[in-house]
Amino acid sequence: MLSTESRLTFELLHRDGAARRGRVTTPHGTIETPVFMPVGTLASVKSLTTDQLKQLGSTQHSALSTQHSPDRDSGPEIILNNTYHLMLRPGAELLEKLGGVHRFMGWDRAVLSDSGGFQVFSLANIRKVREEGVEFRSHLDGSAHFLSPETSLDIQTRMGVDIAMAFDECPPYGIPHADVERSMEMTHRWARRSLAARDALADARGKAPALFGIVQGGIHLDLRTRSAAAIAELPFDGIAIGGVSVGEPKEEMLAVMRHTAPLLPADRPRYLMGVGTPQDLLDGVAAGIDMFDCVMPTRNARNGSLFTSEGKVAIKNARYAADERPLDPACRCVTCRTVSRAYLRHLFMTGEIAASVYNTIHNVSFYLDLMRGVRQAIASNSFGAFRETFLSRFAGSRADEGP
Amino acid sequence: MLSTESRLTFELLHRDGAARRGRVTTPHGTIETPVFMPVGTLASVKSLTTDQLKQLGSTQHSALSTQHSPDRDSGPEIILNNTYHLMLRPGAELLEKLGGVHRFMGWDRAVLSDSGGFQVFSLANIRKVREEGVEFRSHLDGSAHFLSPETSLDIQTRMGVDIAMAFDECPPYGIPHADVERSMEMTHRWARRSLAARDALADARGKAPALFGIVQGGIHLDLRTRSAAAIAELPFDGIAIGGVSVGEPKEEMLAVMRHTAPLLPADRPRYLMGVGTPQDLLDGVAAGIDMFDCVMPTRNARNGSLFTSEGKVAIKNARYAADERPLDPACRCVTCRTVSRAYLRHLFMTGEIAASVYNTIHNVSFYLDLMRGVRQAIASNSFGAFRETFLSRFAGSRADEGP
Repeated sequence: MLSTESRLTFELLHRDGAARRGRVTTPHGTIETPVFMPVGTLASVKSLTTDQLKQLGSTQHSALSTQHSPDRDSGPEIILNNTYHLMLRPGAELLEKLGGVHRFMGWDRAVLSDSGGFQVFSLANIRKVREEGVEFRSHLDGSAHFLSPETSLDIQTRMGVDIAMAFDECPPYGIPHADVERSMEMTHRWARRSLAARDALADARGKAPALFGIVQGGIHLDLRTRSAAAIAELPFDGIAIGGVSVGEPKEEMLAVMRHTAPLLPADRPRYLMGVGTPQDLLDGVAAGIDMFDCVMPTRNARNGSLFTSEGKVAIKNARYAADERPLDPACRCVTCRTVSRAYLRHLFMTGEIAASVYNTIHNVSFYLDLMRGVRQAIASNSFGAFRETFLSRFAGSRADEGP
Repeated sequence: MLSTESRLTFELLHRDGAARRGRVTTPHGTIETPVFMPVGTLASVKSLTTDQLKQLGSTQHSALSTQHSPDRDSGPEIILNNTYHLMLRPGAELLEKLGGVHRFMGWDRAVLSDSGGFQVFSLANIRKVREEGVEFRSHLDGSAHFLSPETSLDIQTRMGVDIAMAFDECPPYGIPHADVERSMEMTHRWARRSLAARDALADARGKAPALFGIVQGGIHLDLRTRSAAAIAELPFDGIAIGGVSVGEPKEEMLAVMRHTAPLLPADRPRYLMGVGTPQDLLDGVAAGIDMFDCVMPTRNARNGSLFTSEGKVAIKNARYAADERPLDPACRCVTCRTVSRAYLRHLFMTGEIAASVYNTIHNVSFYLDLMRGVRQAIASNSFGAFRETFLSRFAGSRADEGP
């Protein structure tokens, strides 16, 4: 069995208040934190080739800038893949046969996979949830599948990811406290089974991913306290706050996050799952979160909702029809360096595929650049001022939507 | 008024049989011929950013390779834009205000625009065709528009293209000889009006595009002979064979092309409009054609029909599900260098936008590489052998579709 250390290490480099500047090391490179992980649901960050993904951000777009270097300014250091979607298409067996998700998509940096729990409880037709696991039917073709702590870990291990997530039950918003509590207790039992499954897989295969546990408890802070303690005492490589972004009001999510983050051990990375807006990321960093993922930059890109340093831009707006300025004058992504708002509007209005491509390049670059700025600010003890300045511009009068 | 020479020059560098190796010089760079022009209907080669377009082909994908050099191996030297589509969206006035199509799409190489004639006669609802021009209604919203030799040239001039096409009537396949003849005669009168309109625009604006005339005559070789003579005697900068790819059988198209090409003046570029398959391009080159355009590589890419040196590949075919080989082992485009057939199939089957992107990168690169090979073969007097070798492999047993 491999040691935990060889799978993942976390260095806490600096603190600025509760905000943390850290570094996660994986078999596929280092990840400077706080970090935003673009979502590559089906082993594809939607609209982008892997080649484009590697060049995202305010890069000079030269061959040189694609080389790996600490906190480099070209492309994400880690992306997320969705276990649920990939187990259905193309399937874990095929992914394993093809050498795992890295080789499959031509990606040599780190990959984190979710456990499938969130999608099973939000997308699939549940047949039966029991202590052993969940029987469900695919949202695509109705085919029957089973996920449990053991099968999820097995699939994630076949996928060859660097960081796997423990399989959890993800209850919806608005159910009674007692039901959330029962669900949470099962998630804790599943957490222990997940660790045992990972170790067994490591023994059997000589290799297994790092494993993060997930704190549940809904919007109930007493349950979050108990869950944080239960998960933190287990030898996970990192700890996530799950069960947020499931329909609860924004303030409830923030309250849960602010309550829970300080309860998590300082020596392991902290991951807030499925969150969120640029403001949410800054709030999370302020509370001591190290890792984030969200479909917002990629999904909004396809819908023409674009993030800029001056606020959100709905590119279909007629005001941009003759606007020759770059989408975000403060950005140096390929989109902002090569075409105008007028062109982006034209592509969006005519339904060109390139609209999604240009918009995704920019939105993901915006998130990556934001987090680079966050890291630099923490390192210079100026995160508070950075956050204030960012938010005052982002919510400023030149945006055509509220922040 | 600017001289024709300053707008466009053509050098005939070498002949290998009837095949011609030439060079067209425009205000936006030189074009090595024979050349394939990717179609950028709405000022976007579908699925690609302009940045990607510039890097297509068997390039090493470094910043250095994007520099302009004779017969460089990175990206097309000329693309086509569609006047009909761009006059409707975003409109000629806006395009002119935004500095023309080059600036609009961030493209610094040459652009040829069609005249709108083909789309008016195939897409729009015709209201009235008369000597003056054509009243039609947009296929998008039914709005009324008018195209004539003069208005088409005006729009193409506002677009700022390097090469404009004379507005022609493009009759459908299968109408009587007498009707084709009447239509052809009007196209000849429109050709003279187009030249006068171009010269008037050049006088008024100090700048106007080079202008190609179009030979019509349907499948009737006697009419093609007359049309070639009529168009050739006018001072066009180049001459196109139009009215093909309108539904006629392939053999009819080839017969028209083989009959007409030798009738065109040797000192001007010859352009076969809207054609075609790789075989068609080789047949055209063999007949002395210099320029080609077709939506086939981009449209087929979106449909998962891919061109390889070993024949066509329908990427949805189950045989590729676990195929780790590059799409075309002989190709060095980004797609073939970075991902497998299995990944391309997965992206196509799951409807990922990146499927269109990867497939378009490859298909257009394939066409560009084919034409680079053609140019090298002509220069070394080996075009016949090149064509034979290409076709024997392309139609070989490893293809999963007929050629």
